[in-house]
Amino acid sequence: MFEFSRLPGVGERTALRYAVSLLKMGATKIESLEHSLKALRQDVNHCSVCHFWVEHDSCPICSDLTRADQKICVVRDAPDVLALERFRRHPWRYHVLHGLLSPLSGIGPGQLRLESLFRRIEERPIQELILALDATVEGDATALYIRDHLREHYPNLKMSRTAMGLPAGASLEYLDSSTLESALNHRTQFE
Amino acid sequence: MFEFSRLPGVGERTALRYAVSLLKMGATKIESLEHSLKALRQDVNHCSVCHFWVEHDSCPICSDLTRADQKICVVRDAPDVLALERFRRHPWRYHVLHGLLSPLSGIGPGQLRLESLFRRIEERPIQELILALDATVEGDATALYIRDHLREHYPNLKMSRTAMGLPAGASLEYLDSSTLESALNHRTQFE
Repeated sequence: MFEFSRLPGVGERTALRYAVSLLKMGATKIESLEHSLKALRQDVNHCSVCHFWVEHDSCPICSDLTRADQKICVVRDAPDVLALERFRRHPWRYHVLHGLLSPLSGIGPGQLRLESLFRRIEERPIQELILALDATVEGDATALYIRDHLREHYPNLKMSRTAMGLPAGASLEYLDSSTLESALNHRTQFE
Repeated sequence: MFEFSRLPGVGERTALRYAVSLLKMGATKIESLEHSLKALRQDVNHCSVCHFWVEHDSCPICSDLTRADQKICVVRDAPDVLALERFRRHPWRYHVLHGLLSPLSGIGPGQLRLESLFRRIEERPIQELILALDATVEGDATALYIRDHLREHYPNLKMSRTAMGLPAGASLEYLDSSTLESALNHRTQFE
């Protein structure tokens, strides 16, 4: 039952607590968890177009006909799509890279879903590519790689990146200089 | 010697450690601290124009003739000026409010240095007012108050606010929705 301790944030003691708790719940509850795990294993796959999670081969993003085909928002991982769509449905489609470039950890362009992104743009021209990647060294490296690759072939393609600035609730005093500089440089008209 | 425990983050035990440490250092070191305190009390005041700290009546911001008179950056407190100017000198002047509006804590417009800001703009017209206030409820309230007050008298005055978005080092997944929405809405051209 120490299989549970492979889950993030779960140590051996918590794994034991889970197991004891399941035993107390009885056989029906354990069986129900078994079924859920089987469904997770068999039914959840990655969409072959945008690489988001799909259940039973139908991607909730790609099958949504109200989303514009002309805009693609590139994110690192599937949970980022959930975070961006939590309170508002955006009018664009997504492309999940399943990682970011990181030469230090040995992650190169081949390990990300970059080829399929470039193929997607080749097959169906788009208006805007929105790079919603982490504001980290790896996010910057990935954004620059995508830009350099696409600039050659599509000099007129509009590329944008999520704004850097003050997060909600932040005090100026405690922020790092690069965030402050960016917040000042991209200051917005206040109407 | 428990006077030290009035300093932020210093409890009675640390105050005692400070006192013991000073005693060990000897009379000369204690006298030197005394002199510094006297200087802090006598020489450091607030500039009558921008309310930043001044030593011997000469404000480092207002007396800097290379800064443009036509732009004023409004901040909450004096340390914000230090934070914004830490790595780069900006070409504008400042105005320190010494607080933010907070009806719940009983802080109204009268307690802030707002009158002198409005007088400054009246006496010498400016081009842009940059509101570099915290991204909090109090920061928003103060920004809106300033905007509403100035809109009446100066309909053409340009007002801007620091951008909201991803702080340096942030992952999308862990950010709140209002920061994410703002980062998407104010996405910048990526060249």
